[in-house]
Amino acid sequence: MTSAAEQLGAFISASRPGALPAALRHEGLRSLLNFFGGALGAAQDPAVSTAVQVMAPFSGPQRATLIGRAERLDAMGAAFVNAVAANLLDFDDTHLETVIHPTAPVAPPLLALAELRGVSGATLLHAFILGAEVECRIGCAVSPGHYARGWHITSTCGVFGAAAGAARLLGLDAGRCAAALGIAASQSAGLVENLPTAAKNVGMGNAARNGLLAALFAEAGYTAAPSALEGRLGWAQAMGDAPDVGRITEGLGEHWEFARNTYKPYPAGIVFHAVIDACLALHKGLDPATIAEVVVAGDQLLLDRGDRLPRNERDARVSIHHAAAVALLRGSAGVEDFAAAAVHTPAVAALRGKVRAELDASLPRGAACVTLQMTDGSRRSIELRDPRGSAARPMTDAELERKYHASATGHDAPAQIARLWALEAEPEIGGLMRAFAPRRN
Amino acid sequence: MTSAAEQLGAFISASRPGALPAALRHEGLRSLLNFFGGALGAAQDPAVSTAVQVMAPFSGPQRATLIGRAERLDAMGAAFVNAVAANLLDFDDTHLETVIHPTAPVAPPLLALAELRGVSGATLLHAFILGAEVECRIGCAVSPGHYARGWHITSTCGVFGAAAGAARLLGLDAGRCAAALGIAASQSAGLVENLPTAAKNVGMGNAARNGLLAALFAEAGYTAAPSALEGRLGWAQAMGDAPDVGRITEGLGEHWEFARNTYKPYPAGIVFHAVIDACLALHKGLDPATIAEVVVAGDQLLLDRGDRLPRNERDARVSIHHAAAVALLRGSAGVEDFAAAAVHTPAVAALRGKVRAELDASLPRGAACVTLQMTDGSRRSIELRDPRGSAARPMTDAELERKYHASATGHDAPAQIARLWALEAEPEIGGLMRAFAPRRN
Repeated sequence: MTSAAEQLGAFISASRPGALPAALRHEGLRSLLNFFGGALGAAQDPAVSTAVQVMAPFSGPQRATLIGRAERLDAMGAAFVNAVAANLLDFDDTHLETVIHPTAPVAPPLLALAELRGVSGATLLHAFILGAEVECRIGCAVSPGHYARGWHITSTCGVFGAAAGAARLLGLDAGRCAAALGIAASQSAGLVENLPTAAKNVGMGNAARNGLLAALFAEAGYTAAPSALEGRLGWAQAMGDAPDVGRITEGLGEHWEFARNTYKPYPAGIVFHAVIDACLALHKGLDPATIAEVVVAGDQLLLDRGDRLPRNERDARVSIHHAAAVALLRGSAGVEDFAAAAVHTPAVAALRGKVRAELDASLPRGAACVTLQMTDGSRRSIELRDPRGSAARPMTDAELERKYHASATGHDAPAQIARLWALEAEPEIGGLMRAFAPRRN
Repeated sequence: MTSAAEQLGAFISASRPGALPAALRHEGLRSLLNFFGGALGAAQDPAVSTAVQVMAPFSGPQRATLIGRAERLDAMGAAFVNAVAANLLDFDDTHLETVIHPTAPVAPPLLALAELRGVSGATLLHAFILGAEVECRIGCAVSPGHYARGWHITSTCGVFGAAAGAARLLGLDAGRCAAALGIAASQSAGLVENLPTAAKNVGMGNAARNGLLAALFAEAGYTAAPSALEGRLGWAQAMGDAPDVGRITEGLGEHWEFARNTYKPYPAGIVFHAVIDACLALHKGLDPATIAEVVVAGDQLLLDRGDRLPRNERDARVSIHHAAAVALLRGSAGVEDFAAAAVHTPAVAALRGKVRAELDASLPRGAACVTLQMTDGSRRSIELRDPRGSAARPMTDAELERKYHASATGHDAPAQIARLWALEAEPEIGGLMRAFAPRRN
């Protein structure tokens, strides 16, 4: 019986681009479109600028593009910075069962490596889909206990996706692909406690950077325990509670977890999207002055993630109180509604103060029930189970394009979008990446 | 009530070199002497050469020394490679309660940073002791459940020591020192399952490298949750079983965990040292041909770490069977006794096959009882609780010097040793480091 890492290694090394279903490849393109838009939208954020400034002195020859920025870094630095940018505004994609945001930690190291080695678009897309699939499968094996224990699953599983995809791009054999995953297991890290802070970004950047490192060490001959994932003293036991390791390899190549990827219409934690949709619906015809109290009910995850009054824009993106307040007051929930200026708007702050979060364990994950207690004693309530962008109400290609346009201010969005949809015809990723960087002097 | 990270941050930033007790500073020097010897002894190992080869393309200006090697790398790469080398042969130091090897992940990033910034020996020693102290204290808070769960504690806690020491060297204020620790929490990783493989080395290198990164991001203004260590979804809860977070800060500045550091006389996992000492004692006057069976009894940790027949030198260093066989057969347990040639010696392999490990839960951690069942039906047995190098039988300064000489073949060991004992008079770490690199053309 071969181990999980060995089975994944054999799968990764044997897979061929043409064998992937067309719908899956299209989902890969949707994910990358959403990724590039998100990274462009956050590219000038001070957190991204700081990451560039910290990483730059530790960069080798600067041959990899930073999306939306004039500087370049080596592949390790670019993997880090682009992962930070893509995830920064909590506006990326989501594999709902695990709450993994699959693309941010996986695409950046592969794009940087592809740029370095002159890889084609079809080859990149294939490696990306394999990496994201491995990431989601490993996440499924430890969900939901892993997240509940305090692990930021996008970082902890992202490193596997980055390692798997990079191993594929490097053309490693089955044994070395397995070793890359085992080495990634010894680099898996990231905590929920740190989510409302910049430490989260370091975790994201590291998932991308260290996954690449794992593949490069495997290429150079470093090994890992074949049982690194499921062994008694291995990853799933250490980081999971009651892991189901069978899910890592069950139906590999037949069933695709990554095909279940979804995209956020709002730049906030995915678990707040039902809150936002319910509040947007309640906003119509509402006079905010008549609200006495807003009660937001949801499951434990919603409360764990978001029962907080925000002090800054990071808090706001993971705050039930802020998400409800802007949606009720302004009838919108875009990037500006979660920016610092919105956080410090007195009317928003006043309404946030009226929001109370409470547990309703009968609600499924991702759902919310919002009840407005009005000053005249009346109540209005909406229970919402399938927010926009969820599996039941997926964002269409046209909606993803509109989201991209809104993020890519100052860029030639139509040309970029067209080029991304045609990624499989792209001869060389370096050319593509140059279309996402401002012209350099 | 301030958090653990905030208390540690205040402690690190307020501490002054002169305030450290002389005995503690001397323990710091002993640790660094042992560290440099270990790194020199492994500097030419293929695993170290591979690490240099993988990291070199991702190095900025190459201004940091690789101990015992002609190449240089940037501080991030040198931190990684020197940490790999110092720990590679399982010949480093040990804080016995936690089984942390304190120096390998902490000294390298501080030496690299000190070399870059022209720091004095006294300043370096002070920062190193603070870092190692933080590392051991955080380890105490989660021991023994953390290791038992599958965490390689030297890597998982080493990143905190590296971050704390680097934060001190950078002169960060209390808040930024605390942030460095919080950022380190989101980078803590490393698995016991991977210990007999090269993936272990990546975990060690990363602890050093990522700890440095945490401090640099904190310096640049990145923040972390104040409760990153003890919060409900923070490090100790996620990675510990029943953590005692009070131990992180209890008696800070009065009681020094790092003062309990010990040094290995044998290049093998610390838990095997009692096995080796018992077998060395049994070796005297023994005819190996008359051994029918060797029964090695110890606690669960000994069995978890070492109940294996080795296939290579990595296995050998964590094999009860190999450690017992070489000590019984050869009456020695030095670097050569754990090298590949020894592993593949038929007489050693034959005796290894006669070794059986069994649980004796009545024995304390670090102890062993070795019983020889002779072919004539007789038995010889030795129970050993305090092996050489343990807290009860510490290695003397002279023994540490002899150990250094044995590792530093081809180097001017007497001059290096003298310079290390006089570290506090060293004006600038760059000059010191050049004494540990072969002359460059």
